[in-house]
Amino acid sequence: MKRASSNLVRKISSAVEWSTLVDGQNRVTGASLTLIRERAHLKAEQVRAAGGAKATSCLLGVPLGHNSSFLQGPAFAPPRIREAIWCGSTNSTTEAGKELADIRILTDVGDVQIQEMRSCGVEDEALMQIISDSVKLVMDQPPLTPLILGGDHSISYPVVRAVTEHLGGPVDVLHLDAHPDIYHAFEGNKFSHASSFARIMEGGHARRLLQVGLRSINKEGRDQGQKYGVEQYEMRHFSKDKEKLQNLKLGEGVKGVYISIDVDCLDPAFAPGVSHIEPGGLSFRDVMDIVQNLEGNIVGADVVEFNPQRDTVDGMTAMVAAKLVRELTAKMSK
Amino acid sequence: MKRASSNLVRKISSAVEWSTLVDGQNRVTGASLTLIRERAHLKAEQVRAAGGAKATSCLLGVPLGHNSSFLQGPAFAPPRIREAIWCGSTNSTTEAGKELADIRILTDVGDVQIQEMRSCGVEDEALMQIISDSVKLVMDQPPLTPLILGGDHSISYPVVRAVTEHLGGPVDVLHLDAHPDIYHAFEGNKFSHASSFARIMEGGHARRLLQVGLRSINKEGRDQGQKYGVEQYEMRHFSKDKEKLQNLKLGEGVKGVYISIDVDCLDPAFAPGVSHIEPGGLSFRDVMDIVQNLEGNIVGADVVEFNPQRDTVDGMTAMVAAKLVRELTAKMSK
Amino acid sequence: MKRASSNLVRKISSAVEWSTLVDGQNRVTGASLTLIRERAHLKAEQVRAAGGAKATSCLLGVPLGHNSSFLQGPAFAPPRIREAIWCGSTNSTTEAGKELADIRILTDVGDVQIQEMRSCGVEDEALMQIISDSVKLVMDQPPLTPLILGGDHSISYPVVRAVTEHLGGPVDVLHLDAHPDIYHAFEGNKFSHASSFARIMEGGHARRLLQVGLRSINKEGRDQGQKYGVEQYEMRHFSKDKEKLQNLKLGEGVKGVYISIDVDCLDPAFAPGVSHIEPGGLSFRDVMDIVQNLEGNIVGADVVEFNPQRDTVDGMTAMVAAKLVRELTAKMSK
Amino acid sequence: MKRASSNLVRKISSAVEWSTLVDGQNRVTGASLTLIRERAHLKAEQVRAAGGAKATSCLLGVPLGHNSSFLQGPAFAPPRIREAIWCGSTNSTTEAGKELADIRILTDVGDVQIQEMRSCGVEDEALMQIISDSVKLVMDQPPLTPLILGGDHSISYPVVRAVTEHLGGPVDVLHLDAHPDIYHAFEGNKFSHASSFARIMEGGHARRLLQVGLRSINKEGRDQGQKYGVEQYEMRHFSKDKEKLQNLKLGEGVKGVYISIDVDCLDPAFAPGVSHIEPGGLSFRDVMDIVQNLEGNIVGADVVEFNPQRDTVDGMTAMVAAKLVRELTAKMSK
Amino acid sequence: MKRASSNLVRKISSAVEWSTLVDGQNRVTGASLTLIRERAHLKAEQVRAAGGAKATSCLLGVPLGHNSSFLQGPAFAPPRIREAIWCGSTNSTTEAGKELADIRILTDVGDVQIQEMRSCGVEDEALMQIISDSVKLVMDQPPLTPLILGGDHSISYPVVRAVTEHLGGPVDVLHLDAHPDIYHAFEGNKFSHASSFARIMEGGHARRLLQVGLRSINKEGRDQGQKYGVEQYEMRHFSKDKEKLQNLKLGEGVKGVYISIDVDCLDPAFAPGVSHIEPGGLSFRDVMDIVQNLEGNIVGADVVEFNPQRDTVDGMTAMVAAKLVRELTAKMSK
Amino acid sequence: MKRASSNLVRKISSAVEWSTLVDGQNRVTGASLTLIRERAHLKAEQVRAAGGAKATSCLLGVPLGHNSSFLQGPAFAPPRIREAIWCGSTNSTTEAGKELADIRILTDVGDVQIQEMRSCGVEDEALMQIISDSVKLVMDQPPLTPLILGGDHSISYPVVRAVTEHLGGPVDVLHLDAHPDIYHAFEGNKFSHASSFARIMEGGHARRLLQVGLRSINKEGRDQGQKYGVEQYEMRHFSKDKEKLQNLKLGEGVKGVYISIDVDCLDPAFAPGVSHIEPGGLSFRDVMDIVQNLEGNIVGADVVEFNPQRDTVDGMTAMVAAKLVRELTAKMSK
Repeated sequence: MKRASSNLVRKISSAVEWSTLVDGQNRVTGASLTLIRERAHLKAEQVRAAGGAKATSCLLGVPLGHNSSFLQGPAFAPPRIREAIWCGSTNSTTEAGKELADIRILTDVGDVQIQEMRSCGVEDEALMQIISDSVKLVMDQPPLTPLILGGDHSISYPVVRAVTEHLGGPVDVLHLDAHPDIYHAFEGNKFSHASSFARIMEGGHARRLLQVGLRSINKEGRDQGQKYGVEQYEMRHFSKDKEKLQNLKLGEGVKGVYISIDVDCLDPAFAPGVSHIEPGGLSFRDVMDIVQNLEGNIVGADVVEFNPQRDTVDGMTAMVAAKLVRELTAKMSK
Repeated sequence: MKRASSNLVRKISSAVEWSTLVDGQNRVTGASLTLIRERAHLKAEQVRAAGGAKATSCLLGVPLGHNSSFLQGPAFAPPRIREAIWCGSTNSTTEAGKELADIRILTDVGDVQIQEMRSCGVEDEALMQIISDSVKLVMDQPPLTPLILGGDHSISYPVVRAVTEHLGGPVDVLHLDAHPDIYHAFEGNKFSHASSFARIMEGGHARRLLQVGLRSINKEGRDQGQKYGVEQYEMRHFSKDKEKLQNLKLGEGVKGVYISIDVDCLDPAFAPGVSHIEPGGLSFRDVMDIVQNLEGNIVGADVVEFNPQRDTVDGMTAMVAAKLVRELTAKMSK
Repeated sequence: MKRASSNLVRKISSAVEWSTLVDGQNRVTGASLTLIRERAHLKAEQVRAAGGAKATSCLLGVPLGHNSSFLQGPAFAPPRIREAIWCGSTNSTTEAGKELADIRILTDVGDVQIQEMRSCGVEDEALMQIISDSVKLVMDQPPLTPLILGGDHSISYPVVRAVTEHLGGPVDVLHLDAHPDIYHAFEGNKFSHASSFARIMEGGHARRLLQVGLRSINKEGRDQGQKYGVEQYEMRHFSKDKEKLQNLKLGEGVKGVYISIDVDCLDPAFAPGVSHIEPGGLSFRDVMDIVQNLEGNIVGADVVEFNPQRDTVDGMTAMVAAKLVRELTAKMSK
Repeated sequence: MKRASSNLVRKISSAVEWSTLVDGQNRVTGASLTLIRERAHLKAEQVRAAGGAKATSCLLGVPLGHNSSFLQGPAFAPPRIREAIWCGSTNSTTEAGKELADIRILTDVGDVQIQEMRSCGVEDEALMQIISDSVKLVMDQPPLTPLILGGDHSISYPVVRAVTEHLGGPVDVLHLDAHPDIYHAFEGNKFSHASSFARIMEGGHARRLLQVGLRSINKEGRDQGQKYGVEQYEMRHFSKDKEKLQNLKLGEGVKGVYISIDVDCLDPAFAPGVSHIEPGGLSFRDVMDIVQNLEGNIVGADVVEFNPQRDTVDGMTAMVAAKLVRELTAKMSK
Repeated sequence: MKRASSNLVRKISSAVEWSTLVDGQNRVTGASLTLIRERAHLKAEQVRAAGGAKATSCLLGVPLGHNSSFLQGPAFAPPRIREAIWCGSTNSTTEAGKELADIRILTDVGDVQIQEMRSCGVEDEALMQIISDSVKLVMDQPPLTPLILGGDHSISYPVVRAVTEHLGGPVDVLHLDAHPDIYHAFEGNKFSHASSFARIMEGGHARRLLQVGLRSINKEGRDQGQKYGVEQYEMRHFSKDKEKLQNLKLGEGVKGVYISIDVDCLDPAFAPGVSHIEPGGLSFRDVMDIVQNLEGNIVGADVVEFNPQRDTVDGMTAMVAAKLVRELTAKMSK
Repeated sequence: MKRASSNLVRKISSAVEWSTLVDGQNRVTGASLTLIRERAHLKAEQVRAAGGAKATSCLLGVPLGHNSSFLQGPAFAPPRIREAIWCGSTNSTTEAGKELADIRILTDVGDVQIQEMRSCGVEDEALMQIISDSVKLVMDQPPLTPLILGGDHSISYPVVRAVTEHLGGPVDVLHLDAHPDIYHAFEGNKFSHASSFARIMEGGHARRLLQVGLRSINKEGRDQGQKYGVEQYEMRHFSKDKEKLQNLKLGEGVKGVYISIDVDCLDPAFAPGVSHIEPGGLSFRDVMDIVQNLEGNIVGADVVEFNPQRDTVDGMTAMVAAKLVRELTAKMSK
């Protein structure tokens, strides 16, 4: 039987209690951002001490799963992806030969303290701001370039917002996903993982939005796509779109390219560890062929919706998510 | 094939690089402890605002798995235990009727930033100190009483040390485990999860140490036990020891009782999600009968060595670890 | 993303449509009950042709899972239990030697058409009536005695009601479960699987109600127990209650004994395939010792809350549920 | 150890007993068909009340697994496919935008009572007739069009027979499968799941039979194919057949097109939950490209051989079977 | 679809072919026994070189699974048990402190070449003889004492026969099992795993036979037990038999004691990796209490019916089987 | 906790003990080779008695896993592959119609006694020689042609060496793998599974070496490839290499073609049961298209690195490995 209530939703019964809570939340939030800032600072110093770089991919985990409509497992993903990146079963070079153990290629500033904030009663609007602030703290330390480990897809909105605000203008967004995630407010939640790209488009953060891998889209998804001028590539036409998608050139005339990969863009055969099993998706090599051949300056990226609670016992999807991160790193770092 | 090297073990090649690193580590460590302090502060204020308590159990996660000799999965345990505590499949009262949703009974200050420290190059000796410091920061905020979520068993040493140093004297320790974890230095590692109770005894932190559930113990384990006066109860004699163990009275004349539960004290039938499967252990009810009937003032506790990577797909061992935490909370809070 | 609506909850928009629906439901309901009647009729004839019996256990599946508060998998249980009863890995005699292949011992009239009714829009109150009617159709064919395969625990109410109405008076109920299932109306649902024993007691269907295996019970559970004079045996006192429970004598002075076994009365080590994992329960042999030694005339029984979607890949819990059914058959048939 | 005998095969020892059995079986069979008739009647009335349609796909489950040569799990498939069709993890529109929650698109009349008939001693020849009769009862209620949920592949024969008899002439059959299922009588069983297409061809029910996905075919399979003029497309030539198969035009000059999809036409990477794992099959998108582009009037279809007992714990193949059903619905309804 | 025939059962069509086959089989059999002899010889020499012993347990694997009535997985058990004995997750001492890494305690002569013999067409009667011969080759090398790793339970007959023939007289047999395995000829197979103890008793190889853990026994099992004077302890009476069984004294006046442990004597909660899941069995500690306290001279033993194809992914039952072997070693070696 | 030492690595403390050991090892090695010789002799006689053949594929298992850098499960593969070849779920003909049950097509001489040798203290260099000797014993019996069941990839070196030495000259090698396995000495081990192709090339055993499926290759891999003139086909260019690879013609002017298939050449979606999960690989049909279309005289082959301990519960990868073996048999036998 379900509990009637919990710590997390306990009612506040007095003004004093309320003021105590808000003060405490502010102190905790401040300390959390300080922690991100210090880690980014240290990592950037290390990159410089090692010779510097034009762009170094910087992992930032955002273990947030509660804006999912179905399962919340993606909150557990970031540590599993990190474990798989460094797993002893593979080596530390990317497909084209970049060395991940070189700190000028890949750094990591840990996770945003999402669950701890929530357990202190911080609400979604504030959480989204903290995510944005954390991304900016990373970007404040060049050459660090944010590569976000989700969490569910709701996090792409505060991340893209932060990236474009920090750069001072919109980007082109390449979005690989089974779903368009563009409901105005899914089940009334404007921060839902199914609404993030509505937020991104209405905020003017993306000049072009290309959605690839779509195979679960309804009337609202197509209407919203049309309203915002989204370029929607559905899987039922993939065989004819394939060549075009494997030769993309993006980001010219704007601040660069942002890549958002929902692991469920892949067919569940290749990535069973997702909340929403939707047969008929891309193969892993299809995704590689699109990303590796893309021309453009990648200024940020995310890999989201990996759900370790649905993965195989040997962590096949963790390895898939990790390889997506590894190859994005190869693409971003220079 | 294994990678030859990684970020984590990158060589430092100059004095400047070294000094940069140490400075940065200090800043990161400081920020981490500040975060624990602020969370403990806020939670204690909330307890007081809600009417106060004599003792409130306070969860502190220590996601450390690298001192294990075999598998490192316990590093992933704390968030899974929390999820299981609040899982919708059960209610929020303990067996004897305490209400966990009452903040005067149960609070949570999140995790020590173990993995982030390690990724900044912080070594084990310093990590152990940070764990101790974090426990003390919790105890600095009465009525919060530390209930630690491991991690592997190596963490019990810095926790018990912190508890006794903060209280100003030794405690009695009830230790449920398949193994005595009392090697002088297992495989040369004095911080090994197999050596924590050697550290506790040589530091004088425990007046009495009772070990219950033992069934994998060799000559060194028995010799060390004798050297330190440990009361070792082996499973092969459990049927005759049972009644005595279900009527323990501990902690009088010292600062109280500390309970350390290694999930593998249970037979693997009851708790398959552990790194070291050792048949012939306690049933879950056996553990309850020992803990629920124990007389004494519990001043700290831990639940360690739950390994989510070995659990059943539906998380049976997570539910077991969570219920151990819930019933320890019932025992500790007052 | 979740569907916004479904066939099952489609709105009816006109009086004509409404009347069409009701007429159709009545025809479908009538045909469903006819089917149960004819199967019971045929099976009773076969028993008589084979020499007759004083009491023959008769399986009736009730694949209903939607009154569960957490998971709905028990709706899939009946065919899996049947498969396990006749599984080639074991023989067809019970522990004390009764031959299940003898139709005078064990018969089967198939399932109540729960899912088909629901897909025709039949609501819960009507469904409960159909379950009761089906049980009575079985009892109309002596010597058939109902042994119900759940389904979730909400079905025990209509079953016990039917049994006592058919017999013309109350029974004693032995109820093995981790939970008391005696909320007045759990989450507002008076037909909830957590409320069935409140219904049974308020209807006067049970003279005595013994609940054994309890380990998830809150204040309302204890208050309701007291209100209705329920004899609640909690696991935390099982070691002292054990002998008494293994020598029960019930049903004298009333119409007999009804046994309701929720599979989660067992520790999850013995029965992992349940919706509500609650450590610290009975062993399989504990249950056998209680049931096999019970003195009394068993007039009906159920085995509920087996959830095949949570079972091990080799169906261990299906075998457990099947053996409970087999041994209840041994107890009931004569 | 295996049981020596069971209820199901109990010997009948007297003429009286025999006549009792046959009378009872007839009553039970009659009641079963009445139930299908009433459900189809109700659903067709609802379609008309909602505005009517030219063709509405109508699910009919046939939970029959015992004609399989290896495993019998497909008997458990229909309820799992229904659960997956309405699963909260996806929405209720098809790839091209049809709304499944509209009763004019998709209806459901439940299952044929296969297991209950068998437990009453009904033999295979009679069972096959009951399946045919049930399909015709659906077709008697226009615009309902049968979409069958298997069950093993033996059911395609009685279904196709019913469809062509009801329409008054043969159809073209598109058959996707790893195996040709065209043995004259596999292991002596003419109703075997490996012989259904021999029955269909010898009965003249198909003008053209196209088999796609073949990769386990022996001499008898090829000989029978030649004898009946079957168009057999083997996977080892798929790369050159692909374009042709993605542009099929069928059913002109006959009564329409019947599509039979054995889930094992897919590579086991895409559909592990099958009895016969045969590597080297079609991708899910390959199947979509063949079915979605097919020109022709679909008058019936089946999805068979999904075996839930071999599926992944999260039900990936259930989702695959459900999506096949969903997209066939999109193709059939108009 | 099943293959019609295979290499293994290919028909021999001429006398020449027959004679070729028999000659070849004889050469292969001879070479196989030579291999066992040489390995036993070497191991015994090593024991003597290390100081000698009175009795050294000697592992001999018998990977035979085809005499099982249900599943054949036990053929894969021996290498998995060996892996678990030396698994890095536990140490190399037994519960009472014997050191397994000491070659005077534990040796291993590998497996009898069962599968290779069968693939050369060797039939069951000859196979049984080869097993007996292999056991004798081990006993020819004192102090080696045979500890057999099954395989299914059919192998206990040739092993016990060899032990008693070598020693020159009967032994007492302690047999732990859910089943009596004493059918005269199960399904017509006198070498069936369900008939081995009928063979042992009719051959006069056991003076006393104690069967412990029984819970699947039918009339033939009890009749055969009575015929041969078997002492059958059923689980439904275990609570009253427990004390007696934990204080056994056997083997006086005969050649010693043989212990045969079928892993399914354990409840499936403790040992899920078996072919025949039979709830209500012994706990692992129950088995330990019986074996560790037994007084008597152990002259041979086996651990059979572990089925790796039914084990959990982390090999819990392999660890259970290995610990049974380890503790039998402790009991046998001296 | 890990054992400090084991039987396998026990120190030898005297010259007598050493000489005893070496003499014994020689006797055991001799007996092992005799066994292979006799089995090959018998099988070749049977082929001749059945009419003879130009080439008959002959399975030889090499259960060696300890030269793997990560997991050692491939040591358990050979019996599982054999079980899957003859599994009742498929028939006994290959895709193009060869009959595997015909002894002139497929024979089997069992396994090299790898684990038994190791448990007698035989070291790697000697083991490699025994593998080579065993392969030659098979080739000494024409028309038997070796088809090796690994085992990890380290075994390809002694096998290819034996094949070329027996034939008297080099071959062309087609090597399908995710990794080049061409490190000079991986982690200092020149027999590592990651170094076998360095050994093959430096020994001059291959004229041409084509590596297909590469997607985990670092600088040393490419450098070594260049040094030895290896033709390396990486997956990131597969779409353009595809046509060429599906039309290979090899082995002219040398002694023939050797095919080495590492199961991890396949994408983990198709073959999850491997030690090194590396997304982005070949589909099963891709491999078939390469192998089935290859022109050339196949003189030997291996299928390696299948790891049953990582396979799905229903053994999907075993079926994949078995089908690779079946289709290689079709290619080799004539």
